[in-house]
Amino acid sequence: MVFQEGFQIDTRGRGSYAITDQVQRLVKQSGINRGICQVFVHHTSASLMLCENADPEVRADLERFMARLAPDGDPLFRHLDEGPDDMPAHIRSILTGQFLSVPVAGGRCALGTWQGVYLWEHRSRAHRRRLTLTLIGE
Amino acid sequence: MVFQEGFQIDTRGRGSYAITDQVQRLVKQSGINRGICQVFVHHTSASLMLCENADPEVRADLERFMARLAPDGDPLFRHLDEGPDDMPAHIRSILTGQFLSVPVAGGRCALGTWQGVYLWEHRSRAHRRRLTLTLIGE
Amino acid sequence: MVFQEGFQIDTRGRGSYAITDQVQRLVKQSGINRGICQVFVHHTSASLMLCENADPEVRADLERFMARLAPDGDPLFRHLDEGPDDMPAHIRSILTGQFLSVPVAGGRCALGTWQGVYLWEHRSRAHRRRLTLTLIGE
Repeated sequence: MVFQEGFQIDTRGRGSYAITDQVQRLVKQSGINRGICQVFVHHTSASLMLCENADPEVRADLERFMARLAPDGDPLFRHLDEGPDDMPAHIRSILTGQFLSVPVAGGRCALGTWQGVYLWEHRSRAHRRRLTLTLIGE
Repeated sequence: MVFQEGFQIDTRGRGSYAITDQVQRLVKQSGINRGICQVFVHHTSASLMLCENADPEVRADLERFMARLAPDGDPLFRHLDEGPDDMPAHIRSILTGQFLSVPVAGGRCALGTWQGVYLWEHRSRAHRRRLTLTLIGE
Repeated sequence: MVFQEGFQIDTRGRGSYAITDQVQRLVKQSGINRGICQVFVHHTSASLMLCENADPEVRADLERFMARLAPDGDPLFRHLDEGPDDMPAHIRSILTGQFLSVPVAGGRCALGTWQGVYLWEHRSRAHRRRLTLTLIGE
């Protein structure tokens, strides 16, 4: 059995946005009990991650880490078409990935206690991000 | 056809632990010949990787690389609830990923000759890590 | 329904190689309309990524970024069996991943407008890289 549904997230610029509830709602709606859940973001300057969901400071530290690793305006970069955050956004997106694959068990994504699903916006400005959830199972 | 099975790995603290044999045993047990194998770890301070399986120095170099990239006690980090290795563990987990997706062919995970499946423990202390293997195929 | 097909890419050494067309051709050939497409590379010194497909400077910047992050001949590394690019290749492969999972919709990989599928060769010399595409869906 295959279930597929698109959805959108409006970001307010760089930062991570919890989408665990949307994902779990769609899994419930699918009627699939056991299988695989794929979440996919159709962009190259945003990504998806499973991150600690209790202390928001974790995600603030992740931003600080990425700002040190691939800073805006880094003179290393030549691709600057859309500004100083353009190439850093592509790098952050590739290092963290545009898809997730999570087991479905008991009609839910079988996340660990501290695992939340986050859309990570890497561009400074607000964007509308398009995602697709695909479930395969029984 | 869907096959799903949970298992646990007791780590002795930071380092990578070969789980290729457990994974291949479960694939064989499933009776699935061709499809997709997903391995998932239900934590935010451990990860999974496909790594060179011949020279243990490769995985020692990976530890040295991560210790330079996201060192314990890095003054950049504010999330220190569980000690100096807490935030570096989250970062290492996110950079390397909590799931793997591998093709199944001929009733086995179709790994390359040098690809081994490893659970990567990023916390200093020993932990019991919970994993789920989900197979979809025929 | 499961579809699986292997293919090879001959690289000319370090750099990224567009494989979007090969992937879309195989998806079309499979006859699967809706589901999940997994692409897998059977090596530990190459990887797969979804990257901006319009400006080649993006992928040149990615090479510059990786050369700074994990440079060839870095004195940190002890695994040098196959030369100064050996360990950096393993690191780049693990950071960017040996598999992709993309939704299939309308008989195609549902990539975003700017998402291209790339094989990333991390070794200096030319290599023949073995890949497998596995589709599950209906």
